[in-house]
Amino acid sequence: MIVEAHVARFDSISLDGGATLSPVEVAYETYGELNAAKSNAILILHAFSGDAHAAGISPESGKPGWWDNMIGPGKAFDTNKYFVICSNVLGGCQGTTGPASINPATGSPYGMTFPVITVRDMVRLQKMLIDHLGISRLLSLSGGSMGGMQALEWAVSYPDSVVSTIPIASTARHSAQQIAFNEVGRQAIIADPDWNGGDYYAGNPPARGLAVARMVGHITYMSDDSMREKFGRRLRGKNSFGFDFEVDFEVESYLRYRGHEFVSRFDANSYLYITKAMDYFDLSNNTGAMSAALERTKARFLVISFSSDWLYPSYQSQEIVRALRSRNVDVAYCELPSNYGHDAFLVDVGEQTELVRGFLASTYEKAAA
Amino acid sequence: MIVEAHVARFDSISLDGGATLSPVEVAYETYGELNAAKSNAILILHAFSGDAHAAGISPESGKPGWWDNMIGPGKAFDTNKYFVICSNVLGGCQGTTGPASINPATGSPYGMTFPVITVRDMVRLQKMLIDHLGISRLLSLSGGSMGGMQALEWAVSYPDSVVSTIPIASTARHSAQQIAFNEVGRQAIIADPDWNGGDYYAGNPPARGLAVARMVGHITYMSDDSMREKFGRRLRGKNSFGFDFEVDFEVESYLRYRGHEFVSRFDANSYLYITKAMDYFDLSNNTGAMSAALERTKARFLVISFSSDWLYPSYQSQEIVRALRSRNVDVAYCELPSNYGHDAFLVDVGEQTELVRGFLASTYEKAAA
Repeated sequence: MIVEAHVARFDSISLDGGATLSPVEVAYETYGELNAAKSNAILILHAFSGDAHAAGISPESGKPGWWDNMIGPGKAFDTNKYFVICSNVLGGCQGTTGPASINPATGSPYGMTFPVITVRDMVRLQKMLIDHLGISRLLSLSGGSMGGMQALEWAVSYPDSVVSTIPIASTARHSAQQIAFNEVGRQAIIADPDWNGGDYYAGNPPARGLAVARMVGHITYMSDDSMREKFGRRLRGKNSFGFDFEVDFEVESYLRYRGHEFVSRFDANSYLYITKAMDYFDLSNNTGAMSAALERTKARFLVISFSSDWLYPSYQSQEIVRALRSRNVDVAYCELPSNYGHDAFLVDVGEQTELVRGFLASTYEKAAA
Repeated sequence: MIVEAHVARFDSISLDGGATLSPVEVAYETYGELNAAKSNAILILHAFSGDAHAAGISPESGKPGWWDNMIGPGKAFDTNKYFVICSNVLGGCQGTTGPASINPATGSPYGMTFPVITVRDMVRLQKMLIDHLGISRLLSLSGGSMGGMQALEWAVSYPDSVVSTIPIASTARHSAQQIAFNEVGRQAIIADPDWNGGDYYAGNPPARGLAVARMVGHITYMSDDSMREKFGRRLRGKNSFGFDFEVDFEVESYLRYRGHEFVSRFDANSYLYITKAMDYFDLSNNTGAMSAALERTKARFLVISFSSDWLYPSYQSQEIVRALRSRNVDVAYCELPSNYGHDAFLVDVGEQTELVRGFLASTYEKAAA
């Protein structure tokens, strides 16, 4: 399945922080066909470092999408049945307007003059895209991690446009620990002299700082168990310790590789803006009153978490479920057993597939009735 | 209790990596009095960023020692009864020879020409100090985290010199996850241009890299729960988000403060060398055969872990206990309930005090019998 990248352009968007971006572009892909009733559309929402290329093979990179194991003919999000859309988030660096985009007022990249954005701003732009595609109601929305935050925000911001929602390995608000890990990543980038106040597009990006930030991220995405299974204390290309500061352990080699690889595909300023949006996100609008916030929703919910995910632990999903149930919202919840930590929603998709498939089928049936 | 800092100097020490350091100095403090039989000496072993100042008030800094709540008259390590010693580890930066020390061959600081050291090297230097003090057998050894590793290493390296051992919140070897967190800290330092290959003593230290490394450390020392209690999502000196990249959340302020504060008291090269020693440490000598390694010990053990410590989880202490029991070694084990994560051994010492006090009293009684 070769897929095509699209870009929609809008005159402007108003942001939660008070600023207006003008113009604004959003990169997206679609898979499957929209039916005549326009009742089979599903919006997929990517996590922190994802992009619009969720499924199929990109003609440019030749690479499969980041959720290709979940989206396609016969898969959980069955493109024989559903019309699936995925867009790059506002503030991103994969085709949607972000800090690396040219500010038309100056002719130079925004850099740190880009306005601070929120998850609700991301969702607002997605709503403009969905309107642009002529779709008034989404059969479902789903995503893991930050994708789940967007799915939740959609359900309360646009209750008339959301039939169902599937937040996975996510939360209604970041804990102090989650904010702390994001802050470390931001400080690693800002500490790199090449960051240069965010003005590096004509020179070298802050590659070392961004790599360190990504290394921290990777540790939090895996579980202690999965790291033990994948690396243990195995040495890299040697039989004994080097007694120097080159790579000794496999896990060191993996982290260094992942850190450097990330630099080639991600913009450091987008790292700052998107992690900030995640930290600001609070479904209760910072009131702590989660149930009250959720009472606006008209959607049914499937909430999924993973047993070994310590970055977005199950108790955070359970908090969402309790808030929904206390307002008598139709919600199913499953904690799936997995050793893969937070990465599970991307890599350990067997049971997740069954859950999503069944939930979508029953939602589609009810919506048609 | 005002305490005095001492330094012992030795001609040379041979290291596991094959190098010899000459001369070598070790900074230490003592509390209480050595009895005539020299049978009441206890060696305290500090964790990664600790030093020889474990108890009492330092006349220079005016500050209490890092385990002052555990060591002193009437405390767990009762200085009315025991003679307590604590020294700064080899490779450290608080008076013991380390990478910031002057290499007599060049007249300049060692920097990265300092040899890579191991936990066994640290213990070897401590043994030289104990011999120098005229003590042939230690009634006990204790420390948390890396201090526990040294306590374990003593028990197998010098079985005739160790009556008992109390490793706390520790492990017989680092997991892939523990190595990974250390590697992130090292890479953050190395990424800082001010690190300059370790040659920065005449200029600016790699303050930004070291601060980022310390920030990561602090997250791992606390638990998700204790961070929620201490910070939650509380904002710092404001009522709403700043929509900029200044501090928004209390937890961000705390981490930045802790990171910068660390720079004033710790040497970045010592960070590299000591974390490397921790990662290399494997009580089984990289054979995986923990029980066989431990069968040399003649000590009795008290092993303590904390329920919310996810950096040195209880299963690692239980692995030590199983290996000891499989060789019929006298070992008591307690997992103490605490919300403080890895920091618990430093701050949540109520039950720990009772355990240590009782264990030392019975050990002293048996040794005297």
